[in-house]
Amino acid sequence: MSVRVGILGATGAVGQRFVQLLEDHPTFDIAALTASPASADKRYRNAAKWRVNTPIPDDIATMRVRETSVEALEDVDLDLLFSSLPSSVAADIEPELCEAGYVVSSNSSNERMAEDIPLTIPEVNADHLDLIETQREERGWDGALVKNPNCSTITMVPTLAALDRFGLSRVHVATLQAVSGAGYSGVTSMEILDNALPHIGGEEEKMETESRKLLGDVDDGELSLHDVEVSASCNRVATLDGHLENVFAELEENPSAEAVHEALGSFEGIDLPSAPDHPIHVFEEPDRPQPRLDRMRGKGMQISAGGLRETAAGIQYNCLAHNTIRGAAGASILNGELLANEGWV
Amino acid sequence: MSVRVGILGATGAVGQRFVQLLEDHPTFDIAALTASPASADKRYRNAAKWRVNTPIPDDIATMRVRETSVEALEDVDLDLLFSSLPSSVAADIEPELCEAGYVVSSNSSNERMAEDIPLTIPEVNADHLDLIETQREERGWDGALVKNPNCSTITMVPTLAALDRFGLSRVHVATLQAVSGAGYSGVTSMEILDNALPHIGGEEEKMETESRKLLGDVDDGELSLHDVEVSASCNRVATLDGHLENVFAELEENPSAEAVHEALGSFEGIDLPSAPDHPIHVFEEPDRPQPRLDRMRGKGMQISAGGLRETAAGIQYNCLAHNTIRGAAGASILNGELLANEGWV
Amino acid sequence: MSVRVGILGATGAVGQRFVQLLEDHPTFDIAALTASPASADKRYRNAAKWRVNTPIPDDIATMRVRETSVEALEDVDLDLLFSSLPSSVAADIEPELCEAGYVVSSNSSNERMAEDIPLTIPEVNADHLDLIETQREERGWDGALVKNPNCSTITMVPTLAALDRFGLSRVHVATLQAVSGAGYSGVTSMEILDNALPHIGGEEEKMETESRKLLGDVDDGELSLHDVEVSASCNRVATLDGHLENVFAELEENPSAEAVHEALGSFEGIDLPSAPDHPIHVFEEPDRPQPRLDRMRGKGMQISAGGLRETAAGIQYNCLAHNTIRGAAGASILNGELLANEGWV
Amino acid sequence: MSVRVGILGATGAVGQRFVQLLEDHPTFDIAALTASPASADKRYRNAAKWRVNTPIPDDIATMRVRETSVEALEDVDLDLLFSSLPSSVAADIEPELCEAGYVVSSNSSNERMAEDIPLTIPEVNADHLDLIETQREERGWDGALVKNPNCSTITMVPTLAALDRFGLSRVHVATLQAVSGAGYSGVTSMEILDNALPHIGGEEEKMETESRKLLGDVDDGELSLHDVEVSASCNRVATLDGHLENVFAELEENPSAEAVHEALGSFEGIDLPSAPDHPIHVFEEPDRPQPRLDRMRGKGMQISAGGLRETAAGIQYNCLAHNTIRGAAGASILNGELLANEGWV
Repeated sequence: MSVRVGILGATGAVGQRFVQLLEDHPTFDIAALTASPASADKRYRNAAKWRVNTPIPDDIATMRVRETSVEALEDVDLDLLFSSLPSSVAADIEPELCEAGYVVSSNSSNERMAEDIPLTIPEVNADHLDLIETQREERGWDGALVKNPNCSTITMVPTLAALDRFGLSRVHVATLQAVSGAGYSGVTSMEILDNALPHIGGEEEKMETESRKLLGDVDDGELSLHDVEVSASCNRVATLDGHLENVFAELEENPSAEAVHEALGSFEGIDLPSAPDHPIHVFEEPDRPQPRLDRMRGKGMQISAGGLRETAAGIQYNCLAHNTIRGAAGASILNGELLANEGWV
Repeated sequence: MSVRVGILGATGAVGQRFVQLLEDHPTFDIAALTASPASADKRYRNAAKWRVNTPIPDDIATMRVRETSVEALEDVDLDLLFSSLPSSVAADIEPELCEAGYVVSSNSSNERMAEDIPLTIPEVNADHLDLIETQREERGWDGALVKNPNCSTITMVPTLAALDRFGLSRVHVATLQAVSGAGYSGVTSMEILDNALPHIGGEEEKMETESRKLLGDVDDGELSLHDVEVSASCNRVATLDGHLENVFAELEENPSAEAVHEALGSFEGIDLPSAPDHPIHVFEEPDRPQPRLDRMRGKGMQISAGGLRETAAGIQYNCLAHNTIRGAAGASILNGELLANEGWV
Repeated sequence: MSVRVGILGATGAVGQRFVQLLEDHPTFDIAALTASPASADKRYRNAAKWRVNTPIPDDIATMRVRETSVEALEDVDLDLLFSSLPSSVAADIEPELCEAGYVVSSNSSNERMAEDIPLTIPEVNADHLDLIETQREERGWDGALVKNPNCSTITMVPTLAALDRFGLSRVHVATLQAVSGAGYSGVTSMEILDNALPHIGGEEEKMETESRKLLGDVDDGELSLHDVEVSASCNRVATLDGHLENVFAELEENPSAEAVHEALGSFEGIDLPSAPDHPIHVFEEPDRPQPRLDRMRGKGMQISAGGLRETAAGIQYNCLAHNTIRGAAGASILNGELLANEGWV
Repeated sequence: MSVRVGILGATGAVGQRFVQLLEDHPTFDIAALTASPASADKRYRNAAKWRVNTPIPDDIATMRVRETSVEALEDVDLDLLFSSLPSSVAADIEPELCEAGYVVSSNSSNERMAEDIPLTIPEVNADHLDLIETQREERGWDGALVKNPNCSTITMVPTLAALDRFGLSRVHVATLQAVSGAGYSGVTSMEILDNALPHIGGEEEKMETESRKLLGDVDDGELSLHDVEVSASCNRVATLDGHLENVFAELEENPSAEAVHEALGSFEGIDLPSAPDHPIHVFEEPDRPQPRLDRMRGKGMQISAGGLRETAAGIQYNCLAHNTIRGAAGASILNGELLANEGWV
């Protein structure tokens, strides 16, 4: 029952999270690690500057890193690949791997909005996996490519999915995002100490478009976007992990704060190894969730919400998720579990 | 032409800013400093734990602190009082002082929404000073009480005033507020390191109500609120000074980003000693304004804006002001200058 | 084999750590929680503003808090008390409890240097428990009082104990201490953001005196201090947990860096449930240990060392420990385990 | 009386400080700016990502940047060059410029310990400029090369110079250094948030050797090092500007803390435009100096000391200086002023 997995881009910040999260996974076993040519053939402990706060698993530490290419993976049995490649690299190599028959669960941002690529959060739109058939037909692949959304999108969309029963028409969202989302060297200390950055390149567009795809429908292999209007304003703040977001939602049915509380808290989970029992925890305390205190709920896979208020224009609340677990490596792993569960692996 | 001023609550964080900002003031001279009974009769340098990053002015350092009471001020000539008292203290003592004939420009939050108390930003609603007549009639005062708004409100409202020509109908705003806004001991290090706080008690309501009063009209001594709907979500982040705010504005005339840029940049200033030439500086760079880099523009009195975008719902932009200068002590001083200029002092 | 323990001062920052660390303890069960009169009779979840990053254990959350007094504990069977009381409170109540027969393992700073009170780090000076006999004779107690040292002392002293074989003559130490060491509200954000504080009241003296007691001898119930000269300079920096210390040690035998490395790494552990296998981990990498990356080694109970260099004057190295686990609650628990193991409980 | 100066490496963090500090200089006028070939011919405002918290001076903003080479400077009259080049670049270009007749005051770390290069802090060892004659003879230069020490060295050495009258024999020093010392991108946010780094490559050796040269003698053009033993331990902390250092000094005469206080406070200044009246300010308060509060004393050019204590081994105190002003650009400018004053320019 063991699934043999490979990690593409295993030495980077998200790659290290994959290694950490898979250490005790019930069914997934790491069988290959890839990185750029400069790291090829090195042992993992020498190729990766390990910065996660648990030690490198012993068996992984001594594993040889491979180059990220179809050829370099030929001599190893692999059932599933996780990808945290830079998107410019992923754009070339992911299609080659899918053509070669691999099933790839990818965190890279390229192709997320393509009409035949499932962009999936298992609790929200597991049925979008139907797009794999479309994808195989159109691209002639034997494998498959599934994407998870951007970390800032994942933090908010499960809460929107829970509220869609009230008729979601317009959403304004402001984010307070952690520095780890930019990678290990993405934000310098001079930029962020005693400061906040009101701009993250491309992030606002990602939230505005990915949300509509995630909340959209797939019928007969055809995708239609949700017609909610999303306006996002994205900020970087001096937190290490955990994206906090302020959401203003305009809902056609104008529900009470109580009804919204109930809808969020009762949003249904999915039965997968890495999924939390309840996808969304709703705090009563107005000053929660907070990044440092709440990002590790549900081993970093539960989303927190709080600060619910009725306003003149609708409903206002805050939500939080761990951006490199629920928002990146954990998101790809959960998609991998869904793929395995549905028989695609 | 010298105006003799007193500072009520002179030892606290905002009180220290008053002392610093008035050091080189062209017409205002500090003639009295008050604090709680525990500090009375001490020299200022001993009563205040000085934490501003310029030295205490020598003549102020040795000035004796008085108790905050009508009696304790009786033996000194004073033309104008600035107040940064805790609001619970201000609620009792400010009316007593006004009754005793003092003109008080106050940063304390009590009574800001009272119908006969001017809540003023000179560039926005200088004409609201007409309410002083109403106030004197209704309360039987010889003096006068003028308030400035909350720091988070001041940061945004001048930009809204600049946009009101386009028909302001609805505003969503999310704030990233500096810790100094909570006073020297208001936020602990354990609360804010590697963290952000999604709640500041009472702050959202202040922004939502004060904005409507500031943008409202005073006719024949009667106040009417602006009917814009404001929804605010307030957060504390790990910056020392400078509130950054993400604004989503819905405007009836649906202007272009260019027209909004032009309206913000050309918003007219006022000719007062502490006022910047242009109240609002508009950045072209999408990653500005930033708190640490831009809070000191115009000696801390200019508001910065940037990140202008047209969205599905209207216009989105960011604004920034120094919260303890433009948003507190500087705001009261500017109101004091307006009072002097208009002959109330 | 279960030991019933009470926690004195259970609602504070260190008190919460006791609750967290004891949740899965193999032999200690929490049977009582005390706090100040204002919290008495409340359920723990209401009395404590829980700030630890794991949830309150369910059974503890609903436990009733008692007042901290001999009377309030009379109706419950208790084998051992842990104390994290403020030292001014501890000074009165700890002796009363010892007189009433309780064995108290205390983190409070009062009486640490008393000649008949064991100040103990189990791996360093377990034999100092012999002072309990002296204590009982002199004070007429049926119970016993054992102290653990200050957090900054604990971080360094095991490394000094490892080096004492080379003849420890003089030590200079500079500390970079985390804000949690001052309690939840001990350091404000205005004090520490973009700043460092070169003074912690009383801390330098604690390190200088406690070290000599810990490294000293107990013979026939008589304590003699070690004659090493210790000079400490203590700083607070913007880290949440984990004290980092730069040690300059002058050693009579002038050992090589290699010999020092070997002595530190082979320093012997003790067989107690909370003790790490190796008390000291020695890093080869010159930029380790670092507070955030290394404070949780050995579940927060292992001390890290690194940066070993021979200098003109002796040996230089850095050491690190988690200040609220190894340096506070964990230290008291380890002493409690030693007391149980040696038959004092 | 105007001196025409050029800035080599003008677009980097220290280069920007040169531009800022020279804006209002009484005698130095910026006549040329150089950078790497990629920036050549661009206007300065486009070549430099300006990050200093005052605006770019208008005339500098539009100045064309030149390549850093002898040829590129041929068509401009220049009396003095300031260098903040990366040391690998400086190693080649500085000697070429000196050969071509330029006088260079350099902040780059190469050649600081060369026996014929003055390493100078004007208040400490202005007479070391005599080495220029040696240098010209040995190297056949028409120009001259003068270096200022590393930022961490400058912070401490003036205090040691003040104490040398008591017979300086051994110094232990631990540093808490600001991130700006590593350049704009030298320390990532992931490295320093909730963390401290116990290692700065090469920094300890710089402090240990440069101190002995600065405190040494130059007689008949021959340099002899001071024989004080210095052991340094260097740490990076989450401050933006301002290096704080804990010094333990062993002094042969064993002076009292009072005598040390007097020696530090009365250390004599030098009459140069950028020099503070008193090089060292001594605080009585035990918790000062602090980086954020005290780094701008004397426009960033005064060194602060405090926390004086007598210990078993000698004297202990803390010192602080602004690392990119007194410790870098301001240090080179002060050396330039000394060169001009002594007739070398």
